Amino acid sequence: METTLTKDKLLFTPGPLTTSMTVKQAMLRDLGSRDIEFINTVKQVRNGLLVMGEVSQAQGYEAVLMQGSGTFGVESVISSALPKVGGHLLVIINGAYGDRIAKMADVHGITKTVLKYAEDEYPSLEDIDSTLQQNPSITHAVVVHCETTSGIFNPIKAIGEVVKKHGKTYIVDAMSSFGAVPTNIAANQIDFLVSSSNKCIEGVPGFSFSIIQKDALNACKGNARSLSLDLYAQWEGLEQNGQFRFTPPTHTILAFWQAVQEHTAEGGVIGRSARYQKNYNLLVAGMRDLGFKEYLSPEKQGYIISSFLYPEDANFDFKKFYELLNSMDYVIYPGKLSQVDCFRIGNIGHITEVDIRGLLGAIKDVLLEMGVSLK
Amino acid sequence: METTLTKDKLLFTPGPLTTSMTVKQAMLRDLGSRDIEFINTVKQVRNGLLVMGEVSQAQGYEAVLMQGSGTFGVESVISSALPKVGGHLLVIINGAYGDRIAKMADVHGITKTVLKYAEDEYPSLEDIDSTLQQNPSITHAVVVHCETTSGIFNPIKAIGEVVKKHGKTYIVDAMSSFGAVPTNIAANQIDFLVSSSNKCIEGVPGFSFSIIQKDALNACKGNARSLSLDLYAQWEGLEQNGQFRFTPPTHTILAFWQAVQEHTAEGGVIGRSARYQKNYNLLVAGMRDLGFKEYLSPEKQGYIISSFLYPEDANFDFKKFYELLNSMDYVIYPGKLSQVDCFRIGNIGHITEVDIRGLLGAIKDVLLEMGVSLK
Repeated sequence: METTLTKDKLLFTPGPLTTSMTVKQAMLRDLGSRDIEFINTVKQVRNGLLVMGEVSQAQGYEAVLMQGSGTFGVESVISSALPKVGGHLLVIINGAYGDRIAKMADVHGITKTVLKYAEDEYPSLEDIDSTLQQNPSITHAVVVHCETTSGIFNPIKAIGEVVKKHGKTYIVDAMSSFGAVPTNIAANQIDFLVSSSNKCIEGVPGFSFSIIQKDALNACKGNARSLSLDLYAQWEGLEQNGQFRFTPPTHTILAFWQAVQEHTAEGGVIGRSARYQKNYNLLVAGMRDLGFKEYLSPEKQGYIISSFLYPEDANFDFKKFYELLNSMDYVIYPGKLSQVDCFRIGNIGHITEVDIRGLLGAIKDVLLEMGVSLK
Repeated sequence: METTLTKDKLLFTPGPLTTSMTVKQAMLRDLGSRDIEFINTVKQVRNGLLVMGEVSQAQGYEAVLMQGSGTFGVESVISSALPKVGGHLLVIINGAYGDRIAKMADVHGITKTVLKYAEDEYPSLEDIDSTLQQNPSITHAVVVHCETTSGIFNPIKAIGEVVKKHGKTYIVDAMSSFGAVPTNIAANQIDFLVSSSNKCIEGVPGFSFSIIQKDALNACKGNARSLSLDLYAQWEGLEQNGQFRFTPPTHTILAFWQAVQEHTAEGGVIGRSARYQKNYNLLVAGMRDLGFKEYLSPEKQGYIISSFLYPEDANFDFKKFYELLNSMDYVIYPGKLSQVDCFRIGNIGHITEVDIRGLLGAIKDVLLEMGVSLK
């Protein structure tokens, strides 16, 4: 077989991201969705996800795959976990993805209470505690682990302790963290963890997944507000005959299984975490060297994606900066903060320090070309 | 680059199906979802779909892509098209996919009226006419074009005439037909046509699409029952900046654009239709020759997927028949009829008469091995 490959741009984005060639090559096959090989692959993927979350079926956890993007996955959890009568969701927000969950609650007519914080601040444990104290009707609490808006790592373990002190169901959107930030689901007392195929596990986009504590999963039965996003029915289908209820993205799942194996070969979550931290450390040191300032204080900044403030130099124009880097095959990401002008650079995907060094060199050249002086 | 490819089984199924190697190879790239090349690809795909439906933006039609399987696409239409107050759906059913639409209406609390027919019968135009006459509150009518349950081609043009005589919105689930059965959307008076990436256009699974008459699309604003499956918001996002609201399955869309180009190269819908008809004619002649009987009468049977009755010979065991064929790398499909034992063989995908001949030879050998005599 001959293939002519364009050399692709490197993606310093939160996903879709740069994946290995072997992950993409796993898609060069057509498997039937009822084929035993495919069914076994789905089974292995589901088991692999439990291993990454440091839990097992024996411990009472289940992994469920759901077609669509990460948002489809989060919505499948929110619209399946909250009972139709008496459901009340506490949404803990410090970024756009927390806001999106609040919006989901609204669309589904789910009663919600919102605790909203600045994008560079941790949610307050005291607030969560007192809110749960004052609102006994709250049944579920949800927070985003790594808020991709800023890159902040929220303290999910401490939040879980407060949520569980009050006996509530705990939902964590771990979209940008799972697979690269050690997350023992049981130890963090998480009932629903959601993530997607095209983040730290380095698969290609096309589905999301949830890891769910079994009692919490059973409580979902009959709650769903849609046919497609019914998390319980999806799990039931996977358990009954190993098949998706509706046509699965077979190629994407084959790629993901390859990605899971490569994740294991890299040393699992610990190994992946180590590479991303190296990427991050090199990136931040290099950016500081060039005169850039980070939006978050260093202790809050995660090693997944980083927000950098626009420099004050009048010659800096983000659109131009982005396009010049793009023309050099480095793709960075615009900011998403509500108040502050910043741009983002991701450290995730099939990239290493070599690529970070290349990016830093390109940024230096672009600043020179734009006549931007940062020091 | 070196790749070691397993020779995959041939899929005589309704999808996922066998695709060309060039379609799969189009996935060997990682494009950013905001990348101009990707945005242009999405634009070309949307235009290509309008061309296949023999309509244009100038004529007032829009193509919208939606993450997930075909069912996600149908649900996005049903749950976005029907107004929250006063919506009333006529569901015309002669198979499992019609039943599924009725179930969607139930999940969303949408008032429905059902006209249900045997799986080997056409819906009655007189019934549709009188039902619409007697139920002026009906706002929308929906029917499946090629019911994959049996393979029947429903008369969507004649049904459209009745629906439009009463001034109702007309929805067609063209999952298994679009791209291979000539369907002029305007001439058929279709307001919403839904299909998916992994059927007759021969892409890989991962998203669905709708082609929508503009007034009907505008009427969707604010109707959606979920965030993810909001058809109007999805269209708005694609129009505003060419981007999906939520992470798109980039690789799947690259494969689809390659599939659209190969579809054009084969002579568009006419060329694709011709190949599938050749496949079908050869298959049915060969199966009859072996002594099999079709479930549908020939004038109702479409050339997409065919249902064959289990032979009466006591030695016939479908599970064994399926597995023996499978071990010879031919994947057929179980039946889905509610009353009759049958199995199905699809004619769609990257398969030609050579493959059909191979399948017929394999079936002959398997019958011999099983000691089944059909004549």
